[in-house]
Amino acid sequence: MIVDSLICSRLDREGIEEIRAGGVDSVTVTCGFWEDANESLDSIVRWRELVAEHRDIAAIATTAAEMTQARDQGRLAIVLGFQNSSFLQGRLGYVEAFAQLGVRVAQLTYNIQNDVGGSCYDPEDSGLTRFGEEVVAEMNRHGMVIDLSHVGNRTALDAVHTSELPVAATHANVFELIEHPRNKPLEVLRPLAERGGMIGLTTYHNLTRGYVATPAEWAEMVARSVDLLGIECIGIGTDSNQRGTDSYREWMRRGRWSRRPQLGAAPPPGVEPSQRPDWFSGPQHFGRLGTALAERGFSAAECEQILGGNWMRFYDAVIDTPLTHTPDWKVVTQ
Amino acid sequence: MIVDSLICSRLDREGIEEIRAGGVDSVTVTCGFWEDANESLDSIVRWRELVAEHRDIAAIATTAAEMTQARDQGRLAIVLGFQNSSFLQGRLGYVEAFAQLGVRVAQLTYNIQNDVGGSCYDPEDSGLTRFGEEVVAEMNRHGMVIDLSHVGNRTALDAVHTSELPVAATHANVFELIEHPRNKPLEVLRPLAERGGMIGLTTYHNLTRGYVATPAEWAEMVARSVDLLGIECIGIGTDSNQRGTDSYREWMRRGRWSRRPQLGAAPPPGVEPSQRPDWFSGPQHFGRLGTALAERGFSAAECEQILGGNWMRFYDAVIDTPLTHTPDWKVVTQ
Repeated sequence: MIVDSLICSRLDREGIEEIRAGGVDSVTVTCGFWEDANESLDSIVRWRELVAEHRDIAAIATTAAEMTQARDQGRLAIVLGFQNSSFLQGRLGYVEAFAQLGVRVAQLTYNIQNDVGGSCYDPEDSGLTRFGEEVVAEMNRHGMVIDLSHVGNRTALDAVHTSELPVAATHANVFELIEHPRNKPLEVLRPLAERGGMIGLTTYHNLTRGYVATPAEWAEMVARSVDLLGIECIGIGTDSNQRGTDSYREWMRRGRWSRRPQLGAAPPPGVEPSQRPDWFSGPQHFGRLGTALAERGFSAAECEQILGGNWMRFYDAVIDTPLTHTPDWKVVTQ
Repeated sequence: MIVDSLICSRLDREGIEEIRAGGVDSVTVTCGFWEDANESLDSIVRWRELVAEHRDIAAIATTAAEMTQARDQGRLAIVLGFQNSSFLQGRLGYVEAFAQLGVRVAQLTYNIQNDVGGSCYDPEDSGLTRFGEEVVAEMNRHGMVIDLSHVGNRTALDAVHTSELPVAATHANVFELIEHPRNKPLEVLRPLAERGGMIGLTTYHNLTRGYVATPAEWAEMVARSVDLLGIECIGIGTDSNQRGTDSYREWMRRGRWSRRPQLGAAPPPGVEPSQRPDWFSGPQHFGRLGTALAERGFSAAECEQILGGNWMRFYDAVIDTPLTHTPDWKVVTQ
């Protein structure tokens, strides 16, 4: 299984075909950044309609077994995820409801503090709030992956320790290799890895400075990450935004919380902008990542782990877990 | 199986126990009258929490088989329903989403016209709208019972003919027996019955004038309804509102669409108000309905049909139907 643990593309048939052309079997998509519960329902409906329209090449998967099954049917497995917890709209009970609707990944915060905790761009990170603790436990119960990619370090570390199940940073790199607030330091990643968590190393150029000009550079970053953290926690989350428009990027970065431009992971004025490399202009080039890893000296088995095997083990442990029990309100089938 | 096809009570443990004391095995509850999508999600969460708290005596059932299973476990089967289609908030895709969350009954309109059609109190009934036609087809696909109790006659008749599956009036009486705009005329009920539909005859005193002072009167109304429509379409939907408050009744009747008092089914000023009979002051007296029917001369088999057997046949046909297929977007389990 080849897994891309996060993209933010608004997909169409061409986009799905590009991902398939890269050899990817399962991809987590972004259903929302700032959307409230109602808008998030709307987004889920739109994703369902998109996938239903292209069901010859795609299917929404809600378990590791379904991801494999979709692959065996020749279809791209699409995992529904959110890059924020705004879809909860402050309601703990919505974790179960949205899990039932197929959501399997949710980031605790996006680019600004919310009722769950602090983001990686906040000067002060409150840590996980009391609501955040409840949300983490509830996500554990309902098999929803806790994503820490944009989360502040203190909140992220709290989540690592609070969660009964392994947690993930689906699209980030190692801060000690590339100093960027969006990348995660070893003080977060080491306990995350020790507890079975995952980091989806990204190709996103703004988070990969110095390791992205060539496939060999990128493979070197992976190798160093493996040296620092061990191989079991390493996967790939490209953060691809296929044919993303300026207005979509502006929505991501600014949402509705500011009237001024917001940068997100883009460099501030005066810093030379990084460039998206030609060798990886989108998920259609995912295959090149495997080639680069092999050329860097990773064995076939190690490549298989990094390219998706580790993610599948994680999904199996987190999504299909003894904690994802039959709800108390349901008639139990005996 | 003993079935009450509609109550509007806000239940607590005492309310659940009252229903059980009446011998009822399965009851459809009202999750909302005027609530939008977000408020409806909130309501579903609250119902789940209530049932989870009292799971020793109740369970949410989503199929006819689950209703029976709950009964066999000694628990009251609770079926989630809405008395309006406002939870859809104009989105066709929400039928599937709310069905997935366990909603099995929805009335097309409550007491005023909406985007689906006209209500029984509207001077002009538009008939089923184009959106209404889509909603009916989508409810068929997802096993949601189409409830016509408060729906205008023209819209109701359109729904009878548009629906591929049988439809229901879960809580109403026969207009030709009791002339009230909320009761349904034979021109609606006969085609409804011919197509396998159901009417839940009610004990609600405002809709039962002349047939409610004694159990024998009420049984006479049932007998006349059976004479007019045949026995197969006859069930019971009490419309009970256990310990309902004035403010709750005001919410039902006025919602947010008027600043003036609205009457609903209550008699207008100058008309002597009808009285809730002592012999049926709530669902704890449901057993008396069976006794009254037996005393009126219905055989044991006929009583069984009216008290729940007919509803179970209907639920089996409408909720678990070949139309309730695996969604197109899902990985099909082979």
